[in-house]
Amino acid sequence: MTIRVTIWNEGRHEKRDAPVAKIYPDGMDGAIAAGLGDRDFSIERRSLDDPEQGLTQELLDRTDVLTWWGHVAHDEVKDEYIDRVQQRILAGMGLVVLHSGHHSKMFRRMMGTNCNLAWRELPEGDLERVWVTNPNHPIAEGVPPFFEIPQSEMYGEPFDIPAADEIIFMSWYKGGEVFRSGLTFYRGLGRIFYFSPGHETFPIYHNPMVQHVIGNGIEWAMRPHSGARKLDNWHRKEPIHR
Amino acid sequence: MTIRVTIWNEGRHEKRDAPVAKIYPDGMDGAIAAGLGDRDFSIERRSLDDPEQGLTQELLDRTDVLTWWGHVAHDEVKDEYIDRVQQRILAGMGLVVLHSGHHSKMFRRMMGTNCNLAWRELPEGDLERVWVTNPNHPIAEGVPPFFEIPQSEMYGEPFDIPAADEIIFMSWYKGGEVFRSGLTFYRGLGRIFYFSPGHETFPIYHNPMVQHVIGNGIEWAMRPHSGARKLDNWHRKEPIHR
Amino acid sequence: MTIRVTIWNEGRHEKRDAPVAKIYPDGMDGAIAAGLGDRDFSIERRSLDDPEQGLTQELLDRTDVLTWWGHVAHDEVKDEYIDRVQQRILAGMGLVVLHSGHHSKMFRRMMGTNCNLAWRELPEGDLERVWVTNPNHPIAEGVPPFFEIPQSEMYGEPFDIPAADEIIFMSWYKGGEVFRSGLTFYRGLGRIFYFSPGHETFPIYHNPMVQHVIGNGIEWAMRPHSGARKLDNWHRKEPIHR
Amino acid sequence: MTIRVTIWNEGRHEKRDAPVAKIYPDGMDGAIAAGLGDRDFSIERRSLDDPEQGLTQELLDRTDVLTWWGHVAHDEVKDEYIDRVQQRILAGMGLVVLHSGHHSKMFRRMMGTNCNLAWRELPEGDLERVWVTNPNHPIAEGVPPFFEIPQSEMYGEPFDIPAADEIIFMSWYKGGEVFRSGLTFYRGLGRIFYFSPGHETFPIYHNPMVQHVIGNGIEWAMRPHSGARKLDNWHRKEPIHR
Repeated sequence: MTIRVTIWNEGRHEKRDAPVAKIYPDGMDGAIAAGLGDRDFSIERRSLDDPEQGLTQELLDRTDVLTWWGHVAHDEVKDEYIDRVQQRILAGMGLVVLHSGHHSKMFRRMMGTNCNLAWRELPEGDLERVWVTNPNHPIAEGVPPFFEIPQSEMYGEPFDIPAADEIIFMSWYKGGEVFRSGLTFYRGLGRIFYFSPGHETFPIYHNPMVQHVIGNGIEWAMRPHSGARKLDNWHRKEPIHR
Repeated sequence: MTIRVTIWNEGRHEKRDAPVAKIYPDGMDGAIAAGLGDRDFSIERRSLDDPEQGLTQELLDRTDVLTWWGHVAHDEVKDEYIDRVQQRILAGMGLVVLHSGHHSKMFRRMMGTNCNLAWRELPEGDLERVWVTNPNHPIAEGVPPFFEIPQSEMYGEPFDIPAADEIIFMSWYKGGEVFRSGLTFYRGLGRIFYFSPGHETFPIYHNPMVQHVIGNGIEWAMRPHSGARKLDNWHRKEPIHR
Repeated sequence: MTIRVTIWNEGRHEKRDAPVAKIYPDGMDGAIAAGLGDRDFSIERRSLDDPEQGLTQELLDRTDVLTWWGHVAHDEVKDEYIDRVQQRILAGMGLVVLHSGHHSKMFRRMMGTNCNLAWRELPEGDLERVWVTNPNHPIAEGVPPFFEIPQSEMYGEPFDIPAADEIIFMSWYKGGEVFRSGLTFYRGLGRIFYFSPGHETFPIYHNPMVQHVIGNGIEWAMRPHSGARKLDNWHRKEPIHR
Repeated sequence: MTIRVTIWNEGRHEKRDAPVAKIYPDGMDGAIAAGLGDRDFSIERRSLDDPEQGLTQELLDRTDVLTWWGHVAHDEVKDEYIDRVQQRILAGMGLVVLHSGHHSKMFRRMMGTNCNLAWRELPEGDLERVWVTNPNHPIAEGVPPFFEIPQSEMYGEPFDIPAADEIIFMSWYKGGEVFRSGLTFYRGLGRIFYFSPGHETFPIYHNPMVQHVIGNGIEWAMRPHSGARKLDNWHRKEPIHR
């Protein structure tokens, strides 16, 4: 069954920063989309500069799983659209939050916390080794015990989030830190996957294993009957028994 | 060590509805405060109609644990104050959310979900039996295997919340429903306790066992060193190792 | 893909107790098997009185999901077979534990606790109403908001288990109790589903909705690649980096 | 209130291996006890070679928190004593499991899994950096954002355990691995803390911060009313309501 995926990308670095544009000539969303090419996905791409910031009700209604990448313009996303996406997630749409999306209004809204963390950027990046901690989880399918990202931006603990429902990956950095880098959260009828690898100044979204994990995350976040059941307020006038 | 408690009550039913005023002549906040009298608490009371809706920064800064009761005026609470309280909770203040507070902006903000549930009100109320599911939790200390509330408003499953960190109580209703009625959530450096018993048209906040549980919840939500540690964003320029 | 299911039933009540034999002329395992008839399952049935107590290594090796019903003869199950089944579960076989199986050596071994609970039996049974608390979980698929079991044995809180990974069902009893009646646990590479409805003196395993839930539980507990990954001790002589 | 602590140490390496005896002339249990000296603890020490393997009922009955260190003789511990300790834990005694105790019958019994992990030993050891992931947890009190163990034995993911109730520490190894190194588990009325640092051939139990964490773990595992409530099977003949 085809999964309808919307890849949402803030889309600012690619326009402003030549080095980023050079690494991602078709945008990070383009690289992410290209990495999903062999799956049964129907992909649309949207950015912050599209009408209604790329988050129209019509689009969300036909989206099974939304992926989110943002960084420098988190505050520009209008609260009314955050409300709209939140309601669609709670009704069953999947959400895959990538890298700096940890600080997006979208992720913070779903978590209820600030989602702060420790971070460190080196011009040349740092070696990140992503370890599988939950080998039988669908998101880890086809992933070796660990894989490496030669140039990564360090994200480290403590990560200010509610306890994750599942921990799929934990990362090691050559510079000395650790991080819970692949996490799932169940909210309402929706499924959320946070995956930290990915940065605008490094070609991480061209990394086949990163692309594979994002694809697994989208397939996991898809609910066959998303929205089929509701979690509405349910007012009953009569008791079942007197 | 004295715990500085602020009892926040929307405070509208008591003004508008004679039957409520009759049951709670000093307000629900007054009944809750009276029920905590024998603990080492320093108590202040605030309502929606106080300056800054009873949620000034100065008050929050000196509050260890905040209790929240709201119902008909959830939408009147300004987002800027919700933001303020959320940041204080994430920095270590405890929050005890009571009954219809499940639908408050405050609780929904901390949960990230709509917090919908099933409910049913009878003029005469329904018998609620509160069962202890976690007998060794500090919040259950001094609570028998179950206690009864002769007149209660039914709250039932499904309850649209993230998985609770701990389930302390589950309720049975004569009318035929069940509900997770006492739950804890850890968010940032703060501790949150949700407790569903309590309704404006029934004398539930005069019930000694309900008062006892609220007192236990406040003591549990108090963090001796709340705010001593922060979960700020932590930017480091240098790796620990090269 | 066909799921290879082994239905293990202690099988003593059916032999000793005429009333049970009358309700379950083909045994409880027969009723359970009949209720799964329309799924793509390859079913085998075993009992305590079979060779090696119905738990040979060969059988377990070809079993994707094992269902367990026991009551009066828990202590007769040999520890060596409990060890064997435990290792198969940790290597990826699913386990569905039914009703009084909560006190089996098998379930207690997997939980690490005594799995005690409150219970009450009436000759005529008690009305149990099973509520769905997690409507979008695969095990709840096709289940209405609640369903009823006219004659059931009461199982009540507190239930002495580790916190469940997921709570799918909670039950209400006319006699006044509540219980977490449908729970999942992830252990090693295996998935465990505990479902409390079902009793030898009541025709509960002839109840179509109970049969439906057990079928959903088996499909959920099946891991497509069970055993494909191992969680063995992994001794490495060399560091990845010097 | 004085906490009655029993430090159980297999006690074999100290007798057999001269290098271990040189690092721990009073045994690892002696070093652990010395590190707790400034707390209000009443400490007893036992080893595998004591009567009833150091686990008499009388001792357990007067023990609030038991710490466990074992390695080469896990299989020598008699199952009857494992049963006995398990029942005392479920009745409220705390358990602190150290380092190679992850593979002890005791820890595996409480977890229900094999508790396998990846490990690597270098004669000179590897640098371990222990990060705090849960800064406001009582076990992390007084612990800086991270601390280092210059010579440690690497323990790495995946760690074959049920999902921990709380993750307090995560470790980084210079050699390239990560590990959940400080974990809590609630079982029955008991509290369990697993802490991986500590090895017979390195002076880790002389490390003040390691000693501090073990002390915090013991204080956390102590339940003021341990055993006051039971989780026995509870048979009721009559319904609460007809």
